[in-house]
Amino acid sequence: MSNELTGYRGEALSLLKKANASIGKQIRITRNGETYEGILIPRSEYGDEKHILVKLKSGYNIGIKVASNMKVEVTGVGAKPAFTRPPAPAAKEELPKVAVVSTGGTIASKVDYRTGAVEPALTAEDLYAIVPELSDLAKVKAHVLFSELSENLTPKHWSEIAYAVAKQIEEGASGVVVAHGTDTLGYTAAALSFALQNLPVPVVLVGAQRSSDRPSSDAALNLAGAVAVAAESDLAEVVAVMHEKTGDEVVAVHRGTKVRKCHTSNRDAFKSINMQPLAHYNVLEKTFEMTGENYRQRDPSRKMVVKPTFNEKATLIKFHPGSVPELIDWYVEKGYRGIVLEGTGLGHVGRTYNAPIKRAVEKGVVVGMTSQCIWGKVHMTVYYTGRDLLALGVLQLEDMLAETALVKMMWALGQTENPEEAKKIMLTNLAGEFSERRIPQER
Amino acid sequence: MSNELTGYRGEALSLLKKANASIGKQIRITRNGETYEGILIPRSEYGDEKHILVKLKSGYNIGIKVASNMKVEVTGVGAKPAFTRPPAPAAKEELPKVAVVSTGGTIASKVDYRTGAVEPALTAEDLYAIVPELSDLAKVKAHVLFSELSENLTPKHWSEIAYAVAKQIEEGASGVVVAHGTDTLGYTAAALSFALQNLPVPVVLVGAQRSSDRPSSDAALNLAGAVAVAAESDLAEVVAVMHEKTGDEVVAVHRGTKVRKCHTSNRDAFKSINMQPLAHYNVLEKTFEMTGENYRQRDPSRKMVVKPTFNEKATLIKFHPGSVPELIDWYVEKGYRGIVLEGTGLGHVGRTYNAPIKRAVEKGVVVGMTSQCIWGKVHMTVYYTGRDLLALGVLQLEDMLAETALVKMMWALGQTENPEEAKKIMLTNLAGEFSERRIPQER
Repeated sequence: MSNELTGYRGEALSLLKKANASIGKQIRITRNGETYEGILIPRSEYGDEKHILVKLKSGYNIGIKVASNMKVEVTGVGAKPAFTRPPAPAAKEELPKVAVVSTGGTIASKVDYRTGAVEPALTAEDLYAIVPELSDLAKVKAHVLFSELSENLTPKHWSEIAYAVAKQIEEGASGVVVAHGTDTLGYTAAALSFALQNLPVPVVLVGAQRSSDRPSSDAALNLAGAVAVAAESDLAEVVAVMHEKTGDEVVAVHRGTKVRKCHTSNRDAFKSINMQPLAHYNVLEKTFEMTGENYRQRDPSRKMVVKPTFNEKATLIKFHPGSVPELIDWYVEKGYRGIVLEGTGLGHVGRTYNAPIKRAVEKGVVVGMTSQCIWGKVHMTVYYTGRDLLALGVLQLEDMLAETALVKMMWALGQTENPEEAKKIMLTNLAGEFSERRIPQER
Repeated sequence: MSNELTGYRGEALSLLKKANASIGKQIRITRNGETYEGILIPRSEYGDEKHILVKLKSGYNIGIKVASNMKVEVTGVGAKPAFTRPPAPAAKEELPKVAVVSTGGTIASKVDYRTGAVEPALTAEDLYAIVPELSDLAKVKAHVLFSELSENLTPKHWSEIAYAVAKQIEEGASGVVVAHGTDTLGYTAAALSFALQNLPVPVVLVGAQRSSDRPSSDAALNLAGAVAVAAESDLAEVVAVMHEKTGDEVVAVHRGTKVRKCHTSNRDAFKSINMQPLAHYNVLEKTFEMTGENYRQRDPSRKMVVKPTFNEKATLIKFHPGSVPELIDWYVEKGYRGIVLEGTGLGHVGRTYNAPIKRAVEKGVVVGMTSQCIWGKVHMTVYYTGRDLLALGVLQLEDMLAETALVKMMWALGQTENPEEAKKIMLTNLAGEFSERRIPQER
């Protein structure tokens, strides 16, 4: 029966078949002089062909890599592990509590094949069905906040998500996972980074590039990684946890203000810009690898500050040859209070932009400069065009992502109506948006 | 005297000093059983510490890598090679003719330290002063078209450049180099790719991230690479030639419709998106490495077609959460005929965009979709939001760069006033803008 070796393929499957093994049996694996003994457990959909998963007596699951000199023997019957429900409540109570707040998108959806409709799927039971390993990682509580493809989210949704996450933290969650569509996940990650200050525990955005009913889905790996980071990492920041490379074991932990979707369809689409990811987490081995020390550390006693207001009268303008500077006047006339320019190179726009920028600044509009290059930082004193813009009062936003700068502008103008105050906020490092400055531990 | 070993540093300098060598002397280098004999020539500013440059009797320059078992001896006086002027005209006549058209930017500028003014520097003599090796590569003719930082260039400048390049080709150039500011070099590369059709010879855009008076300048390497590609490569396309990696020997040859500036300051800022560079050229070794066969080949007998008209009534709109769809109406009211959307993920915008897009399409405005992810291609049949947009008549521009799509939209609307014709142009592969289709050899 194929069910007896659920999830195994290729070399791993051959080895297990040869040994006459099946899920739930006690097996012994000998490889390179080392011996592993435990219960054979099924692979999830994200599994590769090269690992056999065994639950050791310690309760720890390990993935053992297939090798040419590997020997597999069945040594007993074992108890068939129950994966669709959490194990005995007594044991579970000791696990960290993780809240999963679902907002929609591919990761939270399941296609109903009869109707073709996409439905939100994130009850706790659905989660355990997709990723049985979750029950070993945390006591998961699922909460469907809304169900939207993320291109339809607006700053109002960011506020709603901030409130919902804060509520879970106030109720004692050891970490919160936000399941989110990938299209604007980076924008929301930045929004929560500013709205949820002085976090005591991690807030982890997670998405999937391919839905969980597809063999190449990244949903299970990403969810398992996100829950582990929420439950166990030393971080107390807003991060995005997504597939790291083309391999199938490691997720990257990206800072919320520095993460960007850089591929339309690949599973490793999300990249940390102008910095390394904060950490890597190997889902099979259950190991963290921090890449540096410049992060805010978990401290459950820290007092969170929630500032969830965004002012939608801010926008992002991508400059291009032939673009019309009157666009700036149009926004000013519509009552906009903030404009982020996505300029060229080190932070430039055509000289025809100078006059409308001057008019905007004189009316108290905050204007900031970022670069459409994406990597690197703006540096506006190198050429006279940049110096002219600085003289007009344009803020030099260093290596801040254009998208993060837009979100921060909306947030800054949600905190104050005073342009000078808003400018100060824009130039202060609040959540690692300037990557060359130390991240503040407390504010 | 330090002048006697101009340009040499580190290990290479030590070795040469120990041998009592100086520029212009005949030297013999023995390394790993091989012997090289020739005249020691100076390094350019882009030189590393690890190569010694020798002009062999064949006239060919080679860079010999410093090794621990290397022996350097002076074997004679040699003739001091003249690098600031081209050698005897008789020999030069045999070299390919390359025209260098200068438009401004860092590569074409030299700072006057008395006045602080930046001046265009691209007379042929200035070029030879920056890159003496050019005189071995080609018979260079320099032509200053204008002198602008590239953020100030508009589609009118693209037309001017197209005419100037076409003139040089008609007058028999074996290749044309366009010196250009890096900020909008990618946009101009795309513009020339559409304006100069059926090219018989290569057209090479080149820029510099750091000016030639700085020690870390990439100007010399890039210029030498660009002239070599123009003179000798088998290509007949519009390409951009820029520093490849952090090393100091290799330039990448990027297709004009696929190249993007992806770093504000690094010398290897330019990347080919969704494809490999067409070729790599090692400036020290003077060797080409083509990466594939899908390129238009040099054929001096091919008849060039010049179509230099761009319609500036086209724009690029980068969608973001909270962005206002009325912006589309504003452009339509201003008489715009084409809009390229930089959507999220696989090619989405918020559903509030649907109504103004419908109004625009009904008025004959051509609307195309690209992705702000940059890498990957739009695929609008996966989610209902994308299918809705397709139903409204939005063009799915596959893996075309947003910037290239904007330029092509301006160009398509410069060729025809009929929206249906313009749509057909947008969806036809003219210059490799769709990377998964074969590039047409003739049109």
